[in-house]
Amino acid sequence: MAIEAARLSPSLAAAAILGRRGAPPAALPLRRALPLLLPPRRRRLCFLAAAGGDGRAVALPSSELRKRRGGASSSSSAAPGGGEDEKLRSLRRLLARPDVAIDAYIVPSQDAHQSEFIAECFMRRAYLTGFTGSAGTAVVTKDKAALWTDGRYFLQAEKELSHDWTLMRSGNQGVPTTSEWLNEVLPSGCRVGIDPFLFSFDAAEELKDAISEKNHELVLIKDLNLVDEIWGESRPEPPKERTRVHGIKYAGVDVPSKLSFVRSQLAENGCNAVVISLLDEVAWLLNMRGSDVPNSPIFYSYLIVEDTAATLFVDNNKVSEDVLEHLEKAGVKLKPYEAILSDVERLAENGAKLWLDSSSINAAIVNVFRSSCERYVKKRGKAGRQIGKESSQGDPATGSSGVQNGTVNALYKVSPATLAKAVKNEAEVEGMKSSHLRDAAALAEFWCWLEGQVRESVPLTEVQVAEKLLEFRQKQDGFIDTSFDTISGYGANGAIIHYRPTPESCSSVESDNLFLLDSGAQYIDGTTDITRTVHFGEPTPRQKECFTRVLQGHIALDQAVFPERTPGFVLDVLARSSLWKIGLDYRHGTGHGVGAALNVHEGPQSISYRYGNLTALQKGMIVSNEPGYYEDNSFGIRIENLLLVKEVDLPNSFGGVSYLGFEKLTFVPIQSKLVDLSLLSPSEINWINEYHDEVWEKTDSYMLDTETYNCTYIGTEVVFTRMRIVDCFLGSKIIPRIHHSKII
Amino acid sequence: MAIEAARLSPSLAAAAILGRRGAPPAALPLRRALPLLLPPRRRRLCFLAAAGGDGRAVALPSSELRKRRGGASSSSSAAPGGGEDEKLRSLRRLLARPDVAIDAYIVPSQDAHQSEFIAECFMRRAYLTGFTGSAGTAVVTKDKAALWTDGRYFLQAEKELSHDWTLMRSGNQGVPTTSEWLNEVLPSGCRVGIDPFLFSFDAAEELKDAISEKNHELVLIKDLNLVDEIWGESRPEPPKERTRVHGIKYAGVDVPSKLSFVRSQLAENGCNAVVISLLDEVAWLLNMRGSDVPNSPIFYSYLIVEDTAATLFVDNNKVSEDVLEHLEKAGVKLKPYEAILSDVERLAENGAKLWLDSSSINAAIVNVFRSSCERYVKKRGKAGRQIGKESSQGDPATGSSGVQNGTVNALYKVSPATLAKAVKNEAEVEGMKSSHLRDAAALAEFWCWLEGQVRESVPLTEVQVAEKLLEFRQKQDGFIDTSFDTISGYGANGAIIHYRPTPESCSSVESDNLFLLDSGAQYIDGTTDITRTVHFGEPTPRQKECFTRVLQGHIALDQAVFPERTPGFVLDVLARSSLWKIGLDYRHGTGHGVGAALNVHEGPQSISYRYGNLTALQKGMIVSNEPGYYEDNSFGIRIENLLLVKEVDLPNSFGGVSYLGFEKLTFVPIQSKLVDLSLLSPSEINWINEYHDEVWEKTDSYMLDTETYNCTYIGTEVVFTRMRIVDCFLGSKIIPRIHHSKII
Repeated sequence: MAIEAARLSPSLAAAAILGRRGAPPAALPLRRALPLLLPPRRRRLCFLAAAGGDGRAVALPSSELRKRRGGASSSSSAAPGGGEDEKLRSLRRLLARPDVAIDAYIVPSQDAHQSEFIAECFMRRAYLTGFTGSAGTAVVTKDKAALWTDGRYFLQAEKELSHDWTLMRSGNQGVPTTSEWLNEVLPSGCRVGIDPFLFSFDAAEELKDAISEKNHELVLIKDLNLVDEIWGESRPEPPKERTRVHGIKYAGVDVPSKLSFVRSQLAENGCNAVVISLLDEVAWLLNMRGSDVPNSPIFYSYLIVEDTAATLFVDNNKVSEDVLEHLEKAGVKLKPYEAILSDVERLAENGAKLWLDSSSINAAIVNVFRSSCERYVKKRGKAGRQIGKESSQGDPATGSSGVQNGTVNALYKVSPATLAKAVKNEAEVEGMKSSHLRDAAALAEFWCWLEGQVRESVPLTEVQVAEKLLEFRQKQDGFIDTSFDTISGYGANGAIIHYRPTPESCSSVESDNLFLLDSGAQYIDGTTDITRTVHFGEPTPRQKECFTRVLQGHIALDQAVFPERTPGFVLDVLARSSLWKIGLDYRHGTGHGVGAALNVHEGPQSISYRYGNLTALQKGMIVSNEPGYYEDNSFGIRIENLLLVKEVDLPNSFGGVSYLGFEKLTFVPIQSKLVDLSLLSPSEINWINEYHDEVWEKTDSYMLDTETYNCTYIGTEVVFTRMRIVDCFLGSKIIPRIHHSKII
Repeated sequence: MAIEAARLSPSLAAAAILGRRGAPPAALPLRRALPLLLPPRRRRLCFLAAAGGDGRAVALPSSELRKRRGGASSSSSAAPGGGEDEKLRSLRRLLARPDVAIDAYIVPSQDAHQSEFIAECFMRRAYLTGFTGSAGTAVVTKDKAALWTDGRYFLQAEKELSHDWTLMRSGNQGVPTTSEWLNEVLPSGCRVGIDPFLFSFDAAEELKDAISEKNHELVLIKDLNLVDEIWGESRPEPPKERTRVHGIKYAGVDVPSKLSFVRSQLAENGCNAVVISLLDEVAWLLNMRGSDVPNSPIFYSYLIVEDTAATLFVDNNKVSEDVLEHLEKAGVKLKPYEAILSDVERLAENGAKLWLDSSSINAAIVNVFRSSCERYVKKRGKAGRQIGKESSQGDPATGSSGVQNGTVNALYKVSPATLAKAVKNEAEVEGMKSSHLRDAAALAEFWCWLEGQVRESVPLTEVQVAEKLLEFRQKQDGFIDTSFDTISGYGANGAIIHYRPTPESCSSVESDNLFLLDSGAQYIDGTTDITRTVHFGEPTPRQKECFTRVLQGHIALDQAVFPERTPGFVLDVLARSSLWKIGLDYRHGTGHGVGAALNVHEGPQSISYRYGNLTALQKGMIVSNEPGYYEDNSFGIRIENLLLVKEVDLPNSFGGVSYLGFEKLTFVPIQSKLVDLSLLSPSEINWINEYHDEVWEKTDSYMLDTETYNCTYIGTEVVFTRMRIVDCFLGSKIIPRIHHSKII
C-alpha cells in the first residue's frame, strides 16, 4: 500500500539521530504523520479469540460490514444543511463557558495514540463537521468554522460540509495552515483550546510556538473534550472487544524477555521508567492483540515499564482469564485505562527519570509529568532537599522545548520498542512468510476468478471486486481482517493514489483499461500488503512501456545489495531511474515498514526520495517495494511486494562489513502481458521467470479451489483446471518466448 | 582525480541549506576540507602571458621541475636529527615573549585562502616540522611538539620528523584531535595561539569552543606569524608571477556583468559589500588568471565588491598594463594585498552590512570586522545615533556564533560566486570541451607510446611515465600546467588512492599487473582530470571482474537521467551497486566539481555516499565520474571521465520539471581487454562501443604523431600507423565480437 512520501519518509529515528529539535524541516515525526488514508469506521469484524490458536476466523463479507458501518456513520455524521448549526452553536456556547473561556477550539482527526486507524467514538472531527474523510482538522472560533483536508478529499469535503464550514484546501497555493489562519483571523492575545490527548507533545509545542507569534495562548483542556460534550449520549461506546494472547509461536520472544530488554535500555539511558503509548508497541511488547479498530489488531491502552514493575492501563473488560494469566506470568499489573495520568504523577513524585517519545506521546501525559515534576521540586525545595542526580544531566534535546534542566526529569527519545519491533525475530519472519503464501494463493484464485468474470462480461464494480477478494482471503487459515481498506481502482481511478471506491460512485471493472488493486490482510501470524496492476484486454503501447519501467524499478530494488548501515533512501533511486529515463516519476515513497501481525505501516525505516530518514535498513526488517506511475485521468500502475531484509553471502566483504539484500515475501504473478520485452535486459527477464517459478512452487499447496478458470492472467490464454494453473504460474508458455525474444 | 569522500561530500551549499550552525556533524565546510593531496611546492611552470591568446605554452619537463622543486624543498625542510631543535627552541622562546605570552601555538598547513595548492612561502608547517606531506597540523607547547597527519603520510612523517616530534596518527583509534590533546596536556586556563589568517572563521570558532572546555583561551596573533619569525631571511619570497587576463572568448561573461550579478545578490540579501577570499572565486569574477601556486591558475588576492565599487587587493607587481586596463574598464580599483584588513575596518566604520562566507574566509578578516563594528557601535552610541536598519534584522545563522545582532552587521552565507562559478556558461563549456579533446589526443598518443615501451621491456618508472605524459600534453595547444600532481601507480601502488610516486622510491611500470594513471592538465581554455587503468599483460579473472564492475558503475552514472533539484548524493549508489553485488566498495566519493580553466576541485556540488551535501546538480555544472576499487597491497582500479550536466529532451516531463543527464567531456578509450563481457548487459556493451566510436570521431584531428605504434591498448593487437589508430579507437576489431558475444 503506497504512502505519500511526504508522510512516510521522515521518522522518529531520523529525528533522534538529527537531534529532536535539530532535525531539518522535512523530518516530521513519523507517527503523527502516518497516513490516515481512509475514513475509519467502527470495527465489526470477527476476530480470533483463541490465544495462540491457529483456527480459522470467519469474517463477515465486507459488503455486509459496509452496510453496518454506513449505518453507524450516518448516525454520527449529519447531512449537509441538517443539524450542523446546532453542533456549532453548542460548541460555541461551550467556548464561552466561564470554566472553558477560549476563543477557538481545534478538533483534529487523531485519537490519543496517534493511531492510523481509530475507533468511531474518537471520530470527533467527523462528528462535528460531517466530513467523514480520514484526514482533516477542524477549527472553530466564535464566528468562523474551517476544515483543513488534503487533495484526496476536496470533492468529498465539498459534498459533506455544510455552508457553515469553510473548506481549506491544504497544499493549494495561498492556503494558510491552521496556526497561520488562527494568527490571521483572531485578534492578538486570544486563547486557543485543544484536547491535549489528541496532540503529540511535539505537535502541541509546535502549535504553541506558531500561535505565540500573535500572542495567542495555547490552552490545554484535558478534562473535557468539547466535542464529546455536545455529542452526548449519541456518542458511540468506546470499543470493548476482548484482547487475546499473541502466542509465543508467532511472537517468538516472551514478554519477560521483551520487558527485560526495555529495562536494559532504561538502565543504559539512566531512566527509571518509560511510557509506551503507541498501540502497536504495547501489543508487541506484551504479545497481545486486540480488535478495537479496523485493520490493525491493536487495543486502546498504555504501558508503563519501570525498573522493577510494568503496568498495563486498559479497560478491564477487555482482559480475559487467558490474557490475565499471561500478563501475571510476565509480572505485568493491570490498571484502568484512565489511570495513566495519575500514575505518571506518581512517577514524578517518586523522582523517577521518565523516558518519553515526545513525537508520539500525547501532550496530556507529558504536561502532567512536567507539572508534577515542578510541583515536586518546589515541595522538595521547601523541605531543603535536592532532586536526583539524573535531573541535572538533562537531555540537550529538551533545551528548546522550554524544559528546565533540574526541574523536569525526562529523556525525550524515540521509544525503545520502535527499532526492536521493526527488526523481526525468527518466529515473526516465519509467520510473515507463511501468511504471505496463504494470501498469495487467495490472490491467485481471486485473479483467475476475476478474469473469468470480466471475460464473460459479468458486470462488477470496484467495490464488488474488493468484496470478492475478501471472500477468497477469508477462506484461508488464520485470516482475521483486512490490513487497510482495499484500493480497487479501474482506469482513471487507478491514478488516484489513495483511491477508495464507494458503492454509490465507483466504476465497474472492465477490459478496456488497467485495473490497480492494492490490498492486504491481517492473519493470525502475519500482515500482508500487495499491489498488482492488470489489463484484461489489450494494453496500449504507452501502458506497456510505463508498466515495464515500473517493473524495472521494482526489480532493481528487489535485487539491490548494499552494505550494512545504508539508510533506505539511498536505494530509492534504483526504483525510479528506469522511469526517470523517459521523464516519468511517482509522487510517493517506494517502501514502508510493515508489522508482523500488526500495523501495515510502521517505522522507523523507509525507502523514500526524501532524505530525512537516516534509519539504516537492518537484517530482519520488512519493507514494501512499490514503485508506481500514475497518469492523471487515465490509469495508474503500481507493483508491490513485501521484502525481508537479510544478510547476503558474498565472495567479498569490503570494509569488513556485512552486505544486505532482500528476500521476497509476496508470491503472486506479475502480468506478463503488460511487459514490453524489448525494454528488458536478459537478467530482468530471468528475474520474472524465476519469480514465477517460485510463485507456483511456494503457493501450489495453498490453493483451495479446483474449479475451471479462463485465465490470461500472466499472458497465456488457456482454459485450465487447478492443475493447469501450473502452466499459468510457471509461465511455461511464455518462458521460451522470452528466452528467444530479440535482445536489444 | 579521486577525493576522499569524507573531504568532498560536505559543501558550503549544504551548510547554507541546513543552516550554518544547524548542519549535521557530517557537513563540514567544503573549502576548508578540500583535499590537500600532495606536497605542494613552489611553482616554476611557464604560463601563457598573452591575454585571451590561444598560443601554445612551452612548459619545462616535470623531471626538470621536480629537480628545481626538490632544491627549494630541501632548503626549507630540515633533515631528521638536523636543526629542528633550534627551530623548536626559537619558537618556544617566542611563545614566552611578553608581547606573545602563549602556552601553545598551532601551525596548520593552510594559506590565508584555504587553497588546495599553496605557495612555498606559506608552507610553514613543513618548514617547522620537516614533514613535507601536504596535510598536517603541528602543535607546539612549552615542552611538547606534536604533528597530526592522516594514513596517507604515516610512513613519510615517521621518516621526516625528528625525535622531538610526536606523530599523531589521525583516524587511528584513541588518537585525540588537536583540541582534545590541548585539553589533555595543558593545565586548565592556558592561552593557545594561532595565526588567524590561517584558519577559516568557522574553524577558529570550533577550535575556540573545543578548548574552552578546559578554560583555554584562543589567542589570535594576527600581526606576527611565529614560524615566519624564526624562518627569517631564508623564507622564500612570496610568488611574484604576473597575472593575465582570461579572455572573454574563454570566460564568456565580462567582468561588469559578473560584478553586477554579485551586486544584485548583495541587494537581495540586504548587504552593501562582500569579501571574496577564495582565490578561484576572485579569478573567476575578474576574468583573470595567475600562477602563484602549482596546478591552479590563481593568484594571491582578495576582492571586495561593494554597491558601487570593487577593489582587488593584490601585489601591484603582478598587474601588467593589460590587466590594469582590463580592471579599470570594469571599474575595479587596486590596493595592496595587505590593505585588506584596513578596508574591512573602513566598511565597518561606514556601517556597511558585510557578506562573509565564514566557512572559507579567514578568522583575521571576520574578527577585524567584528571588532570594528563593536568599536563603531560604541562610538555611535556615544554620539546618540543608531546603527543602520540591516543590523537589527540579523541573520538567524549568526545566532550561535556569539554575534550580537545590532552590533555586528554581517551576513554569514556561502559566497555569491560559488554557485555562479559552478554553473558554466556557453564559452566555458566550449573551452572545456575543446581542451578535453586536445588532452584526449595527448593521452591516446601517450598510451600507445607506453604500450610500445612496455612491450619492448624498456625500463620505465612511475615517475618517468608521468614525465612522458607531461611531454605529450605540452605539445598540445594552450597547455599551461598539470592540474594536480600525477597519480601514477603500478600494481600495489595503484591501491593507494592518493599515491604520488617519488623518483627515489617508485616502482617500474611492467606488464604483470594493473597500472592506474590519474592525471590532469590546465589549458588556456579548460581544466582536465582523467583516470584510466590498463594492463599490458594478462589480467587475472579477478582483476577483470573488478574492472568490469567499476566500469558498470561508471556507465550507470554516465547514463543517469534525473529530475532537476536532485542532489548529487542520490546518484552515488548507481556507481556502487555493481560492486556492492559482490561485496566490494570504494572509500572515496564518486564525483567532484571541476573549474573551467580553474581549480580541478571545486564545489558546491558533489556525488558522494555522504549525505551532507544537498546541492542540486544543475545544468552547466561539471562533475567527475570516478568509481574505483582498491585491493590493498595488490592493485587499484579507477575509471574517470568528466561530465557536463545538461538538460535532456524526453518524451515526458512528469511534474512539469526538467530532467537532467550528463554529456561526456573526456574521450579516451577504456581498455576492453579488462572487460569481462559475460557480466555486461547488451546496453552496457553498446555504451562502450558507442563511446569508442565517439572517441575516434572527436579526437582524430588532434593527433599530432604519425609514428607507428604497437598497440594493444583497447584489446586489439595490431601494428598500425596513425591512420590505423582508427581501427584501434573504433574498436572495429572488437565490435563484432561484442555484438555476438553470448548474453547471459
